[in-house]
Amino acid sequence: MSDGKALIATACQLADTARAITLGHFRRRDLATENKAGQGFDPVTQADREAEEAMRAILAERRPADAVLGEELGHSPGSSGLTWVLDPIDGTRAFISGAPSWGVLIAVDSGEGPVLGVIDQPWTGERFLGGFGEAWTERCGRREGLATRRCATLGDAVLYTTYPHIGSPAELAGFNKVRDRVRLTRYGLDCYAYALLAAGHVDLVIEAGLQRYDIAAPQAVIEAAGGVVSDWRGRPAHLGGRVLAAGDPACHAQALEILSKVPEAGTD
Amino acid sequence: MSDGKALIATACQLADTARAITLGHFRRRDLATENKAGQGFDPVTQADREAEEAMRAILAERRPADAVLGEELGHSPGSSGLTWVLDPIDGTRAFISGAPSWGVLIAVDSGEGPVLGVIDQPWTGERFLGGFGEAWTERCGRREGLATRRCATLGDAVLYTTYPHIGSPAELAGFNKVRDRVRLTRYGLDCYAYALLAAGHVDLVIEAGLQRYDIAAPQAVIEAAGGVVSDWRGRPAHLGGRVLAAGDPACHAQALEILSKVPEAGTD
Repeated sequence: MSDGKALIATACQLADTARAITLGHFRRRDLATENKAGQGFDPVTQADREAEEAMRAILAERRPADAVLGEELGHSPGSSGLTWVLDPIDGTRAFISGAPSWGVLIAVDSGEGPVLGVIDQPWTGERFLGGFGEAWTERCGRREGLATRRCATLGDAVLYTTYPHIGSPAELAGFNKVRDRVRLTRYGLDCYAYALLAAGHVDLVIEAGLQRYDIAAPQAVIEAAGGVVSDWRGRPAHLGGRVLAAGDPACHAQALEILSKVPEAGTD
Repeated sequence: MSDGKALIATACQLADTARAITLGHFRRRDLATENKAGQGFDPVTQADREAEEAMRAILAERRPADAVLGEELGHSPGSSGLTWVLDPIDGTRAFISGAPSWGVLIAVDSGEGPVLGVIDQPWTGERFLGGFGEAWTERCGRREGLATRRCATLGDAVLYTTYPHIGSPAELAGFNKVRDRVRLTRYGLDCYAYALLAAGHVDLVIEAGLQRYDIAAPQAVIEAAGGVVSDWRGRPAHLGGRVLAAGDPACHAQALEILSKVPEAGTD
């Protein structure tokens, strides 16, 4: 088995494991949440931690030389040059309110960016995978190829973002300038929006304030499906921050022309 | 079979039929849309019309004396005093962008309001039904009881709405006053938000500008599950307009205290 195939097999094993654990907690009436940040609303569920611990146990057994970066349990160094980037429940607010737009995010980073990504939605039973020449979605044992769709003009684009008041005032103003140009803007899908983009159902996803584990897996899936992911200046986005994902490079370029005028974070 | 049981059986037959038709169009690459309003973005899909025609054909056969009001094909009079209120695809914007938050809405109105409702989400395979003493959700052949959850304080509530800029400026201001008091606000779920409320995962859904076929089925499901649905003055909401749905009457009362100060539509 090539290393690519082995990594895909391990990623699917991680996703299977996290799916079972998270589904066991999803929509439970006694779902325990606590306040991680100490202020505001940033729930962490037990499912989050259990799923990450289970994925890390598998990696310790199957991939002991790889580093691991997880949303819940931080960084564990490795020697292989590969880092597994894990977000056991991306979209905890969706999770705690019963909406199936959260997902399990699993990526492998080569040191220069993600080379493999999985977006798994346990409730709908959908898995989206991209990397090492593969790009597919699977549900109920049926697998289909993933490909972004063409959308040459911003005015034809369907745009998604999670929160209507994204980022700083300057970021929001930049976002709104794109929003005012597109055909349709929708809110609230968390990582599922990136999956829909990879599958060719939407054209743009724009977000700000992301963490590395929020975007590594979506980026790999979208790039494998023919899309483009960058920050708002056209630079690599896999470390987080401001993200612009597009199915069509032409649409990406038109959105970038607007977003690149937003002052750098910290200067606005 | 009592009339209640017969109506439930017919409603489920309608939902089965609409599910098959809508799923046949969902996420199709060549999904045809047209602009119904002639301006703005109000897509109608072929699936919408096909599903309503198929449901009407069943009703013509099984319930010839009942009236029918459908989103796509208007009103057909009847003599029984019962009206079937149909929205074959509630959430066409979600539908055309691949998001499984749209639904098939089916209600029976007695003349004084909905007495039976079905919210069906074909992609997740979930059905939510309420009326004639029944309140349940079913997926993959597994049926569970529906019950709203307790939430005595607005500050503990999870609130959903579809669009961040709902209604008129006065309506938006009223909505935002509630939003500023709750624990968490989420956007974008269309009729699926009402289903989550009936199932006890969220506490409030607030919308404005609804049509009768948007709210009839959700109201029946939520009331059967123990929740409260009214307009923003505490009056019946089943004819559409401004809607306030809550799982807990105490939470409903607190939101109503804020929303009832919004001037009547047409006077703001």
